[in-house]
Amino acid sequence: MINNKISIVGNGNVGSHLIQAFDDNGIEITHVFSTSATIEDFSSLKSDVQIVHSVSELPANQLVLLCVPDDKIQSLVAQLDKSTPVAYTSGSVDLASFDRKNVGVFYPLQTFTKGKNLNIFEVPFFIESKDEAFAKQLFNLAWKLSRKVEYANSATRKKLHLAAVFVNNFTNHINHIAKKYLDANELEYQLLLPLLQETTQKLLEKTPFEAQTGPAKRKDYSIIEKHVEALKGTDQEIYRVITQSILNTYQND
Amino acid sequence: MINNKISIVGNGNVGSHLIQAFDDNGIEITHVFSTSATIEDFSSLKSDVQIVHSVSELPANQLVLLCVPDDKIQSLVAQLDKSTPVAYTSGSVDLASFDRKNVGVFYPLQTFTKGKNLNIFEVPFFIESKDEAFAKQLFNLAWKLSRKVEYANSATRKKLHLAAVFVNNFTNHINHIAKKYLDANELEYQLLLPLLQETTQKLLEKTPFEAQTGPAKRKDYSIIEKHVEALKGTDQEIYRVITQSILNTYQND
Repeated sequence: MINNKISIVGNGNVGSHLIQAFDDNGIEITHVFSTSATIEDFSSLKSDVQIVHSVSELPANQLVLLCVPDDKIQSLVAQLDKSTPVAYTSGSVDLASFDRKNVGVFYPLQTFTKGKNLNIFEVPFFIESKDEAFAKQLFNLAWKLSRKVEYANSATRKKLHLAAVFVNNFTNHINHIAKKYLDANELEYQLLLPLLQETTQKLLEKTPFEAQTGPAKRKDYSIIEKHVEALKGTDQEIYRVITQSILNTYQND
Repeated sequence: MINNKISIVGNGNVGSHLIQAFDDNGIEITHVFSTSATIEDFSSLKSDVQIVHSVSELPANQLVLLCVPDDKIQSLVAQLDKSTPVAYTSGSVDLASFDRKNVGVFYPLQTFTKGKNLNIFEVPFFIESKDEAFAKQLFNLAWKLSRKVEYANSATRKKLHLAAVFVNNFTNHINHIAKKYLDANELEYQLLLPLLQETTQKLLEKTPFEAQTGPAKRKDYSIIEKHVEALKGTDQEIYRVITQSILNTYQND
């Protein structure tokens, strides 16, 4: 079903990274379906990429990998020839939503930014398909890019995605609140970047339970009260509820 | 007031790092007041450190740097000879709480872990004292360790500390919740570490406002609802309030 030729739908954050990674690892990208891509985007690749603007222009006999937002997946799959093997990169879309067998999941647990390099070899990929042989082929394909490939059913994948929302989306927004607060007080957010880096570094060596410090950890209610007073609206609410959660976590210390 | 000899009180996360950094940069640590330190802790230093167990054993004519929890600072300062210059490393303790002039702030905006190296040269230090000459001396002392030294009054320092609570303490706890959730579902938290690293890496290049992705950013209410259902108690509350804050932040997109 899968040979060394692939079509990709989408040239955004995920698509652009996977196109590069496949090309780097000897898999030919023959077609990219994208409304915004230009041939210059692929000029450094070994693959001879043809840009297409409709699903009907994709070869029916090779894998189509959908690197598109969740809400586009269903209709794209429906437009493909029933015989065409197709996989998608979403953390959330349930495999049970499709009534064909040759559909699979190729989920990289990472945040991709177009134009920003990262080490794909370290990215965990999660694979799923109702067709065992197809799942195995997707597994082998991911294995050409990464050394962290696992099978995971839709329920497991959703759990990983939920945890990823905390680790990526929420961490990022917490930093947005810190920056907004410093901006409002005419202080530089840049000053906090070494702290952010060290916070993450520490988590490579210690569990977050062990690494916790700060006023809530040491039950310093007088500081907590002053911080709450200094904040407003949702920011204050977030301060309160995370602080309460830290207090609960260490209540027996 | 400050020559090249210093006494340090505390050999914990902050103290142990500053002792090493001073020693590396040609400042002699003559005395360390610590109840837990042993002479082996300082055997690799160029400084010939004497461990003492009471404030009265510290030389009266050189700087004493207090690397101790906030609630210990007031009483330690009170025990020191009125002529002894003293500084503390806290982000929160107000300089106005002291009725002597030769007291100052030497606040490193970083999370230190005893035994874990970091690049002190990148750590921002914030300096304050009512005595201008003493402030300048503390500034010069910090400048021997780091290239990011600034004067900051107590109000500014508290704001930086509040932002640091978000960036460090809250980021860490958010990761604790993700780990707890994965542990409960028998999934590996380690799988999320490349994502966490990339999340932080991205913030060195983009603002958190630009870097935001995920279901709340793209207003994917069906996923949000499923995530909320999958969580309980304070974890659910944290998911809700941060999601609401992201929705508010991008409401006009």
